[in-house]
Amino acid sequence: MQTLTAAVVGASGYSGLELTRLLARHPRVRLTALTSDRWAGETAGARLPLPAEAASLAYGPLSGSEAVDAEVAFLATPAEVSHQLAPTLLARGLKVVDLSGAFRLADAAAYPGWYGFDHQHPALLAEARYGLPELARATLAGARLVTNPGCYATAIALAVAPLVRSGLCSASGIAVTGLSGVSGAGRKASEDYSFCEVDEDLRAYRIGRHQHVPEIEQTVARYAGACGGLSFTPVLVPLRRGILASCVLRLTGPATAGQLTEALAAAYAGEPFVKVMAADKVQVKDVARSNRAHLGVALDARAGAVVVVSAIDNLVKGAAGQAVQAMNAALGWPEATGLDLLGG
Amino acid sequence: MQTLTAAVVGASGYSGLELTRLLARHPRVRLTALTSDRWAGETAGARLPLPAEAASLAYGPLSGSEAVDAEVAFLATPAEVSHQLAPTLLARGLKVVDLSGAFRLADAAAYPGWYGFDHQHPALLAEARYGLPELARATLAGARLVTNPGCYATAIALAVAPLVRSGLCSASGIAVTGLSGVSGAGRKASEDYSFCEVDEDLRAYRIGRHQHVPEIEQTVARYAGACGGLSFTPVLVPLRRGILASCVLRLTGPATAGQLTEALAAAYAGEPFVKVMAADKVQVKDVARSNRAHLGVALDARAGAVVVVSAIDNLVKGAAGQAVQAMNAALGWPEATGLDLLGG
Amino acid sequence: MQTLTAAVVGASGYSGLELTRLLARHPRVRLTALTSDRWAGETAGARLPLPAEAASLAYGPLSGSEAVDAEVAFLATPAEVSHQLAPTLLARGLKVVDLSGAFRLADAAAYPGWYGFDHQHPALLAEARYGLPELARATLAGARLVTNPGCYATAIALAVAPLVRSGLCSASGIAVTGLSGVSGAGRKASEDYSFCEVDEDLRAYRIGRHQHVPEIEQTVARYAGACGGLSFTPVLVPLRRGILASCVLRLTGPATAGQLTEALAAAYAGEPFVKVMAADKVQVKDVARSNRAHLGVALDARAGAVVVVSAIDNLVKGAAGQAVQAMNAALGWPEATGLDLLGG
Amino acid sequence: MQTLTAAVVGASGYSGLELTRLLARHPRVRLTALTSDRWAGETAGARLPLPAEAASLAYGPLSGSEAVDAEVAFLATPAEVSHQLAPTLLARGLKVVDLSGAFRLADAAAYPGWYGFDHQHPALLAEARYGLPELARATLAGARLVTNPGCYATAIALAVAPLVRSGLCSASGIAVTGLSGVSGAGRKASEDYSFCEVDEDLRAYRIGRHQHVPEIEQTVARYAGACGGLSFTPVLVPLRRGILASCVLRLTGPATAGQLTEALAAAYAGEPFVKVMAADKVQVKDVARSNRAHLGVALDARAGAVVVVSAIDNLVKGAAGQAVQAMNAALGWPEATGLDLLGG
Repeated sequence: MQTLTAAVVGASGYSGLELTRLLARHPRVRLTALTSDRWAGETAGARLPLPAEAASLAYGPLSGSEAVDAEVAFLATPAEVSHQLAPTLLARGLKVVDLSGAFRLADAAAYPGWYGFDHQHPALLAEARYGLPELARATLAGARLVTNPGCYATAIALAVAPLVRSGLCSASGIAVTGLSGVSGAGRKASEDYSFCEVDEDLRAYRIGRHQHVPEIEQTVARYAGACGGLSFTPVLVPLRRGILASCVLRLTGPATAGQLTEALAAAYAGEPFVKVMAADKVQVKDVARSNRAHLGVALDARAGAVVVVSAIDNLVKGAAGQAVQAMNAALGWPEATGLDLLGG
Repeated sequence: MQTLTAAVVGASGYSGLELTRLLARHPRVRLTALTSDRWAGETAGARLPLPAEAASLAYGPLSGSEAVDAEVAFLATPAEVSHQLAPTLLARGLKVVDLSGAFRLADAAAYPGWYGFDHQHPALLAEARYGLPELARATLAGARLVTNPGCYATAIALAVAPLVRSGLCSASGIAVTGLSGVSGAGRKASEDYSFCEVDEDLRAYRIGRHQHVPEIEQTVARYAGACGGLSFTPVLVPLRRGILASCVLRLTGPATAGQLTEALAAAYAGEPFVKVMAADKVQVKDVARSNRAHLGVALDARAGAVVVVSAIDNLVKGAAGQAVQAMNAALGWPEATGLDLLGG
Repeated sequence: MQTLTAAVVGASGYSGLELTRLLARHPRVRLTALTSDRWAGETAGARLPLPAEAASLAYGPLSGSEAVDAEVAFLATPAEVSHQLAPTLLARGLKVVDLSGAFRLADAAAYPGWYGFDHQHPALLAEARYGLPELARATLAGARLVTNPGCYATAIALAVAPLVRSGLCSASGIAVTGLSGVSGAGRKASEDYSFCEVDEDLRAYRIGRHQHVPEIEQTVARYAGACGGLSFTPVLVPLRRGILASCVLRLTGPATAGQLTEALAAAYAGEPFVKVMAADKVQVKDVARSNRAHLGVALDARAGAVVVVSAIDNLVKGAAGQAVQAMNAALGWPEATGLDLLGG
Repeated sequence: MQTLTAAVVGASGYSGLELTRLLARHPRVRLTALTSDRWAGETAGARLPLPAEAASLAYGPLSGSEAVDAEVAFLATPAEVSHQLAPTLLARGLKVVDLSGAFRLADAAAYPGWYGFDHQHPALLAEARYGLPELARATLAGARLVTNPGCYATAIALAVAPLVRSGLCSASGIAVTGLSGVSGAGRKASEDYSFCEVDEDLRAYRIGRHQHVPEIEQTVARYAGACGGLSFTPVLVPLRRGILASCVLRLTGPATAGQLTEALAAAYAGEPFVKVMAADKVQVKDVARSNRAHLGVALDARAGAVVVVSAIDNLVKGAAGQAVQAMNAALGWPEATGLDLLGG
């Protein structure tokens, strides 16, 4: 049975922590390096409960990430850091799974507007494979650079793509409101994300300007043929982890609730991590700490609208779990390896 | 200075409690009766801190509500109960402010489908004045029966009506996701609303079937000329009180962000309780325990979409505070009487 | 490798759910029966994610629990139900692990006062082995009836017993305040435990009258030689799961912080599930969803007081996890079997 | 009717915000200055809803606080800042109400150990009057420098002093566990107080080392004759505001529950802000946003222990509300002026 050595770069953020937990218990992976400035010098076992070998690993400084000793590196770093680090690691022969947005958009010209930096590596944008196995499985085998989807993008693309692809719903005029737990903002010292400011509050942010918008449109267009003019409003809600997306689509013609559910269910038949159910049964708590996505569709016939509700854990299916699933797929391993017992 | 005696019917629910608090401190109101089966026989002062006179009131049984001794009765009862009680009280010469949906829809034929009962009092439906002063002020003076708006309906109609009325946004194809704190479900013994089931969870419910949908469409149509095919997805979120609505409208033609903001601001110029601000500054915590509504509009030019974000406290501007404001308006009193110091 | 068939009686409560999750993944257990009136007739897989075999189990009615087909039955039922059910199951030859208090107190005469019923089975009280392996391991091997400790009792006895046994702290005059998440109250439809009543609130309950008090005193006396006059104040706090106990003991004579820590550390050296650390490093989130207990001791020399802080997950180390650990011990299996990857 | 001009120094912290709210609505106070580096240059009305005159005030920089134009200055600043600022303001003829600990301890020698700085103004320590009217009313009239009690100290001294003074409970061997909402830590950008780190967690801190310990002992000694060796364990709990203290005292001899309750009730007879009730009825939510303290005592006869439970809002009775109450008392005004409608 093939095994692999792996490094986690940016191991003390919330996604980095989840990656460490998952990879330390993955039956075909051996963790060999962790980097984090926050915890540099400490051992991993002092920070989280881990099997003995992983527990004894010491965090190295982030600046040493270029030289990590591993066959695959998972980058849980800001997009600018990943943008700089990935080429070096690839040149050294490592495989890279990048959890940031640094390689998600095919069009380098989109980076200044959505991500705030100029992209220097268009060849890598062309090479990067999108790590959403349920939609992009065919392209993942043998990938050298996997670009892991954004958390909102995962929840929304999984919900929307099959209905657009079915022809029942329009590829334009989609309106999405996405609710996210606070861990989606990352681990940081910030008044805005302090308990007193977040608890008992709700607020929308980056309305129409969230960097996952072009990623969602690109993904839906790629796997469903078209997508444009999607409106997205993210909202911060007082829970630690989890995303619930409410996606409103327009019918292209007459359709029944059964046809819509069937389109969704057929798209994910046999998928280990996607479950289709009644829309009002989709709940964040049922996917928390798991790699699952729960989806449901409701026909609002009066309004000519279709509402797809989607729930994931932003740190697992929206980040670390999906990264492991995509790595499994890239290596030709069963996708659920190391992920099947999560969130039981 | 004119004063009035008032009764609260259904005084132990969350809206009834807020009404009791507000009316007990209202400078022109004297509370004379409270009814509640749950607390029948107890004094109000044993249940919540109140000025001395109100504190000494004893809760009577709900079955005695027909005979309450007061000039105005506030009904914080389920729609079926209000439907039965209001005609009796009106016949006895009381004014009635009903916080349920029993008299909100002009069309009696809509009741079986949306509320689950046959309406027996179409004449009262015709007579009832909608208690949303910012939109319906002109019709409130002298009202005998005020039908207080639903909490979601308040948040959404205030957000949507001015933009439709301005002609900048279409009256059709509106998609709303509304997030509500748990007190919106009322006070009840229920597993579904227990702390363990709600905390750290998010779930959508009654998608496209919430009874506030026809109320919103009726209100927007009445005050903005037209409205149809509005899609509404309510979501339960883990906070005690507050609503945040994200309303996505379509532009009818080219428009600037400035024009949209101006249309919203102009509609509420001089209003004591509505404040227009940047959409990402709208937060539930800033309106909690107050009678204020905070509104903001963002233009998503890429998507041709307009997002209006609206926040209220579901128990105050969405229930008890608005009921007092509407009563003030009906009596010709300054609308902010008894409400101006709330939520400071 | 020996394996065993197991049943969970009362499988839809929070402890029953945790038991189902754990046993369904336990490498030496095969789940063969689940009973619950709430979910009778449904399959387990419709309620929680489980491996295929367990997922296909249908919940039977609670009244059929006497006849469950298994070698060991875990009772996650109220004390009165366990009191009635355990003798029948034992008579049929099953082993029983009871998670209620029905068999925790050695003295039948204590039951009316602390539990509200007369105990009919004093012979079983004598036979029952206390399922707290860290203190009672020696008596567990071969047990036919394991009585699983209470959640508070686990947190507090683990904290207090070693310090009393060391002679450094007095066995009398112990004052404990215990904070518990809401799942400790069980799954029920109750206004008192509704989100709106619990969120943003704190309240003490059953002060000095909690049924875990005699259990704690009995346990500390048994494993540390003496205990009496322990004062216990439980407090309900707004989180889903977890207990933090603050236990204040009195020094018997001069002692250093180092001696106290050493007494605690020595007692649990080599234990897989108990970790001793600085008292202000003990946090509920580090033990959540795991079978671990975290303990720390602080010397308040000024006050002549010793404060031991203890944290567990009330549903795992305080219920289901400990039940599995005790079963493992009773069977002579490695205690961490099926528990080692939890809460990573 | 005498009125007064007032300044709030440190107006953007949580206590400063509460002070601003309260003083802006106080019928005998006119707010004339607010200082805060965080919001320097902004108007108060842009930050919180206020009556018109207060809303138009602009925040000045903290460095300008020495020169504020007002008759009384409320200092909501860290102890080191208050320590430096108060003498200057007093020398300029202002009255000062200091919410920090800078002038709470009579003994200057206690400052290095408990507060980490050398005290330069022992004469002011001698002059300062302790702003806990229920215990220290007699000394407040005419005070020039009021030192406002700590939040924990308020909750605990109110609970403990009457029982010690009554002779029923011992002045030594008191063990207190205090639970505090997160606003007690102040407003700050800190990972430790971020939503993700605090939600669903509990942790003890500064066990036996909290700076309120000598303040509590000093207060109880002063008003009840003696106090020593009090052990205090503070715990951070996931709510925004509120303190619940569980105080365990030892009986000096035989006593009944009735005698204990009577001792507590008699001490606070006629007090507008202290209410005595059954210990398990004391809840944080009933005092939230009010200046009330709720107290209850339970006799744990088995253990020879007395448990007093005490609840306050840490930002109101534990800070801003009490500061206003003490100012009222110092000026000879009715103590409830400006405070009576809070938290209704």
